[in-house]
Amino acid sequence: MLGDRIYSRDGSSLEAVVGRMLRERGATVSVAESCTGGLLGERITSVPGSSDYFVGGFLVYTDRLKTDLLGVDPELIPQHTAVSEPVAEAMALGARARTGSTYAVSVTGEAGPESATGVPVGTVVIGLAGPDGKAHACRYALFGDRAGIRARAAQWALDDLRRCMSGNPR
Amino acid sequence: MLGDRIYSRDGSSLEAVVGRMLRERGATVSVAESCTGGLLGERITSVPGSSDYFVGGFLVYTDRLKTDLLGVDPELIPQHTAVSEPVAEAMALGARARTGSTYAVSVTGEAGPESATGVPVGTVVIGLAGPDGKAHACRYALFGDRAGIRARAAQWALDDLRRCMSGNPR
Repeated sequence: MLGDRIYSRDGSSLEAVVGRMLRERGATVSVAESCTGGLLGERITSVPGSSDYFVGGFLVYTDRLKTDLLGVDPELIPQHTAVSEPVAEAMALGARARTGSTYAVSVTGEAGPESATGVPVGTVVIGLAGPDGKAHACRYALFGDRAGIRARAAQWALDDLRRCMSGNPR
Repeated sequence: MLGDRIYSRDGSSLEAVVGRMLRERGATVSVAESCTGGLLGERITSVPGSSDYFVGGFLVYTDRLKTDLLGVDPELIPQHTAVSEPVAEAMALGARARTGSTYAVSVTGEAGPESATGVPVGTVVIGLAGPDGKAHACRYALFGDRAGIRARAAQWALDDLRRCMSGNPR
């Protein structure tokens, strides 16, 4: 009944499960983080031996860095806001192209306490680029305070990567 | 007697103190992280309103990304190892130049459990680039397991930035 919502039966953390899946596939991953500010990379690299599959990534807190470092089309942001599917997809594609990783995961969102973009606090969009060179993004409405929203955003980002690799995309 | 080793008398976290100092100076900061994998950016951005002074940064887990993303001279790494003062300084200068931030902090080290570079586990080198366009690095021998070494590395990195801004460099 729970299906693929169970990622571990032995107490392994989600980042350890994702790491094992990447290693089994001989694949690598990079990240492009806005509202999580490094938390996603921190979780991936908390696993010993993660240098086998984690190459690196980008923290792009400002709109300018999303464009300068990741090549996000500067017109996308005023058109869709920084917390949008087109921007999350462009971030993931940019990280993948610049690092040469197999997969790239992006996170853009409003962690609060105030909204800078106009979208409600708790809105997070996660992008995923894969070996086919295409990107897909999902939008989430997360609850909690700033720390809780960031923690949940990193968790969903890892789970989106897990589902993508296991052929059950969200 | 404790002098500038006290960073807070009101319970403020080090990242909040550093954030207040950056805001007071109208300054910004970027990061270039290897062994901390995002933890330094995560701590800086855990403070609400940190987008006033944090612009972003780079996670450069592989040697190749240290060169490709930050412009670290590829000859420096085999010559000095990736955990060295010249590499930490080049990482900080690269992050500062590529983001346009006032300050940039870099972290490179061996968090364990095994050493990939030959330097002892717990060795961490922190680089700091400032408004004068110069960089300076300090080497630390940190104790603890992987999580402990990473946590202490992020703490020293924040404290090095604090001391630099207060005119008491290490």
